[in-house]
Parts: sequence; C-alpha cells; structure tokens
Amino acid sequence: MHKISIIGLGQIGASIGLGLRKKIKGVEIVGHDIEPTTAGKARKIGAVDKISYSLPNSLEGASIVIVCVPVEAVKQVFDEIAPSLEEGTIVTDTSSTKIQVMQWADEILPNNVDFVGGHPMAGVETPGIEGAEQALFEGAAYGIFPTVNVRPESVDAVVSLVNLLDAQPLFIDPVEHDSLVAGVSHLPIALSITLMNATAQSASWREMSRLAAGSFRDVSRLSSGSVDMHHSIFSTNRDSVLRWLDSFDIQLKQFRAAVEEGGDDLRELIESAYQSRSDWLSGKVKGDNDSIQNVPTASENMLGMLGGDKLAELSRKFDKDSKNGPPGR
Amino acid sequence: MHKISIIGLGQIGASIGLGLRKKIKGVEIVGHDIEPTTAGKARKIGAVDKISYSLPNSLEGASIVIVCVPVEAVKQVFDEIAPSLEEGTIVTDTSSTKIQVMQWADEILPNNVDFVGGHPMAGVETPGIEGAEQALFEGAAYGIFPTVNVRPESVDAVVSLVNLLDAQPLFIDPVEHDSLVAGVSHLPIALSITLMNATAQSASWREMSRLAAGSFRDVSRLSSGSVDMHHSIFSTNRDSVLRWLDSFDIQLKQFRAAVEEGGDDLRELIESAYQSRSDWLSGKVKGDNDSIQNVPTASENMLGMLGGDKLAELSRKFDKDSKNGPPGR
Repeated sequence: MHKISIIGLGQIGASIGLGLRKKIKGVEIVGHDIEPTTAGKARKIGAVDKISYSLPNSLEGASIVIVCVPVEAVKQVFDEIAPSLEEGTIVTDTSSTKIQVMQWADEILPNNVDFVGGHPMAGVETPGIEGAEQALFEGAAYGIFPTVNVRPESVDAVVSLVNLLDAQPLFIDPVEHDSLVAGVSHLPIALSITLMNATAQSASWREMSRLAAGSFRDVSRLSSGSVDMHHSIFSTNRDSVLRWLDSFDIQLKQFRAAVEEGGDDLRELIESAYQSRSDWLSGKVKGDNDSIQNVPTASENMLGMLGGDKLAELSRKFDKDSKNGPPGR
Repeated sequence: MHKISIIGLGQIGASIGLGLRKKIKGVEIVGHDIEPTTAGKARKIGAVDKISYSLPNSLEGASIVIVCVPVEAVKQVFDEIAPSLEEGTIVTDTSSTKIQVMQWADEILPNNVDFVGGHPMAGVETPGIEGAEQALFEGAAYGIFPTVNVRPESVDAVVSLVNLLDAQPLFIDPVEHDSLVAGVSHLPIALSITLMNATAQSASWREMSRLAAGSFRDVSRLSSGSVDMHHSIFSTNRDSVLRWLDSFDIQLKQFRAAVEEGGDDLRELIESAYQSRSDWLSGKVKGDNDSIQNVPTASENMLGMLGGDKLAELSRKFDKDSKNGPPGR
C-alpha cells in the first residue's frame, strides 16, 4: 500500500490530509505533529489514517513526505528527517516563503531524495487544526518549485497531488515568488498587524472598539493568524518585505498629501484603487506572456509516465482518482 | 397613515427601507433618489412603497425624513428640502462623519423641525442599491446625535427606528465620533485603497495578481466601496484622518525596524496585535465607564411618551411592532 506522510498537522497539513482522504483510497496517510494532542485531533477528524509519535518512524515506506510547518521550523524538520529518508522519496513543503527553504533542502536533504517545494495560497482566519477544511485549496493558486536535479516523475507526482486538492498548480521561480508574495500577501499581513497595534494602543481604544465594524474586522483579520507563521514569514522574506513596506510608505504619503489638499488627487487615488480592484476581480489583469507557468492538467502530465516504478504507479493512481472526481459530485 | 421619507436609495437607504418594511405595517415608505432608475429598483425590491421623482413632494406629510446620501451631498439635500419641510418633522441622516453634518443641519434646516443625526456602522462590499440587504443593520452599532434643542420625543422616535432595524443605538458626541471612526473605519479604508494602488501600480502586478489570495482580498476589499462615499469621508473628516495616518505611520516605521532587525521586537509586535484582536473579538475590551452611552431599549423609552401627538403615536407604533418582532422569528 502506498503511504503519504504529513509532518505538521496545523491548518494546512490537516486540510491536505482531509482533501486527499476525500479523493483517494488505497493510500495510507500517516501524520506526525510536535504536539501529540494536535496529532490526536487530526486522526479524530479523519485528516490522517494513523499518527506516528516518532518523526523518523512516520517516514517509513512513504512515497511522499509533505512538510507543513512554519518556515522557521522547516530547517529543523529537514535536519531531523534527513537521516531517515529512503532513497527516491519525494519531499515537498507548504511554506509561504521559498528562497530560504530551497536552500535548506539543497544543503540538508540527501541527494537521493527529490525535493519539490510547494506553496498553497489559501488559508482561513482560525489558526491551527481548528481551521482545517477539506476544501481549503479549492481553486487556490499552488506554487510548485522543483529543485534542479529532481526527476520529472517526482514533479508530476506533486502536480497530481495539487490537482487532487482541486488547486491550480503554477511553476514560479522561488526568488520571483518571494518578491511577488511580499506584495500581495506579506504586506497585507504587516498592514493588518500594524492597524491592530495602532488602534489598540490608542488611549481611546475602549470607545473606538465599540464602533469597530466590518471594515475594521476585515482589515485587521490577518493579525489573528498564527504568530509563528507570521514571524517566520517576516524573518525569511525580510528584504522583499522591507522593499514593499517602503513602496507602501511612499503611496501612503501621497494619499496623506491628497487628503490634506482635498483636491482632485484624492478622488483620483480613490478611483484608481476602485478600478484596479474591479479589473482584478473580473480577471482583466491576467495575461499569458508572464513568468508564471500554468501546469498542464494531471492527465496530460501522466501520459509521459509509463515507467513501472513505484512513483509512476502512485502518480497514475492519483490521476485515476482525480479523473473519477470526488465521491458525490 | 404615517409616512416615512427616504432620500437616497443606495445601499444604506434601500436597506433601511427593506428593514422597516419587514417590521412595520400601516406606515407608508416613500423614496426619492437623484437617479430615477435607482428609485425604480428600490420600489421593485420592496424597499419603498412609492417613489417620488420630486424631492419636495417626497417630503409631504412625512413624520420622519431619512437622508441617506454621501456626506458631501448632504448639504445640497438640506438646501433643497429646507423650504418644504413641515413643522415638527424629524430629520435624520446616515452619514459616516458627523461634525460637518451637524453644523449644516444647524445652519440650513428650519428651527421648527428636529434634526437627530444618525450613523449606522454597517455595510457590505457591493456599493449602491445592489448591496442593499434587509438585515444589514442587525447587531450593528448605530450612533445617534441629537441637536441641542431637539424634542425628546424626536430622539425617542429615531431610537425606536434604530431598534426596529435590530441595530444597537448609542449616544456619542459628534466630535468624539468623528475622531473614533477615523481610527476604526476611515484609516482601514485609507490602508485598503493605498494597498490596492501600491500593488496595482507595480511593474509586476500582472504576475502578482495571480498569486493574490484571501489575505489580499480581505485587506483590499474596502477599496471597492463607493468612490463618492470615500471621497466624502476623507473630505469631511480631514483632520482626524490625518492624525490617524500619522499615528499609523509611526507604528509602521516601528514594524519596519523590527523586520529589519529580526529580533524579539518583531515577535512582540505580532503577538501584541494577535492578543489585542483576540481581546476585541471576545468582548474583553468593553467597559461601562466610557463616554459612549448605551440607549435604553425602545419599550423603556416609550414609557415616557404618553402624549397624544402624532409623533408619540408613531413611536408607540414602532415600539409595538418592535416588541411583536419580525414575522417568522
């Protein structure tokens, strides 16, 4: 029986387990978490078939190991799993920043395993396993980052896994990825945290908080995310985040000047944001000739995978389950 | 038959109509909008019983006139309705800023009508009548701002109206209100607009936009709000907004320094925001001894209103309908 190992059973790890469990049979999902109670919950909600309290034991016989821990903990997990990984195992992760993780994989993981980085761009407010959802990745962009010497079958296997989760696999350069997500993901997190601190530290916060409604709730929402995850993001993507904070600061100064002057500039800034968001929501921004590659669907991928090895077999299995679709659809 | 007049049938005006229509019978709701097609839609969705294409005609015989236009348009509406308002009419509004509106009411409206300002702190992303919802104000804070010489019955009538909408009436000083909402409402709008502009004007926006997920969607959401409303807000609450932008800027610099240094400060800022939001969501921030007054429920209010005049009668009607509750609950 094929085996998938999930290391870290927070919101992302447990959601991957739930998503895969819904789509594939005949594959055993083994989970490990540094917190035994979290691991217990994961089994209870059906995110994993089995839990392993020992990290090395959880790897035994696994075709794919999915590392779902905050970026900063990835290095430690790599250190701990490196000696126990079997030859040919595929290792993937789900970290929000990639440059650092790709470097750790290169330095720490043995040469006879295939590392293919991953980044599912999805998440809900509730941190940890309490926020796990079977359909968390449905329609979400999912970055895939193959290392240089990785076997194509290993990349295909990760693509198939992403397809099984109903996410959209995309190939991006890790450096470009980190720079892009600094703008659309890490900057919003920084703004949310700073809004929360600026208001809550004000002398009138008690009164203000009673008037805080949907607009405050939305913009401050991200500050309720996992403290560890956020700390990891800002630590491992420092330079890109700093560039975006500076770029935002210039824009904010421009907005401040427009408010102060109260002239046409103010209306133009408000209109331009309105229009840009409207274009984004209606898909008008998208173009084909950019540096992010859409990945062909699993079935096309699988055509080239007729070798008889364990991995191709697993990929074909993924593919078959993927084509059959989820039960009840 | 009692008559309520709603001037401006956007998201707020139409939602008030829908909310009242669900709760009270035997009161006619007449609507007016500068756009005849908007007025037509309002009648079609049942937000008003009748539309009046003439602003002065829509006031005829109305016990309460509710002005639901962007702040900047309030002055013009006051100018236009002032000559036609009948003695004893209650006028209220729904503007997001109050200092300016209270001043206009004082200067423009005749002395023999009662102005009681209002600010429902609720709204959805879709601007205009398309975003109207019957339950928009359910549980929302609703600021009430009586003018100095207003009759107590008029205040009670507006409080009853707010209760009918299932909102929570609060008494706040207009100056304090504008300062408080600048922090919890107008600052988030400014950040949302600026995030949208900073990212969409970047050279890599096309690529970035494909990776933009829930976090970007949330923090940028407010930039999809009504351009007129936002322009009005920043124009009429300039000084408080500037103060909050400066205060935010100080916090953002602190956050930037923490990211750059990567030490304990970064974790502390993330944790403090997490904790503050958690306290806010769990209601731990609220205290009783602050300057915002909860308003007694409609039934208590109504005890003092046994006079036989038209207004008290209307208020009693509100009260009765309010106590009966919405049909089907």
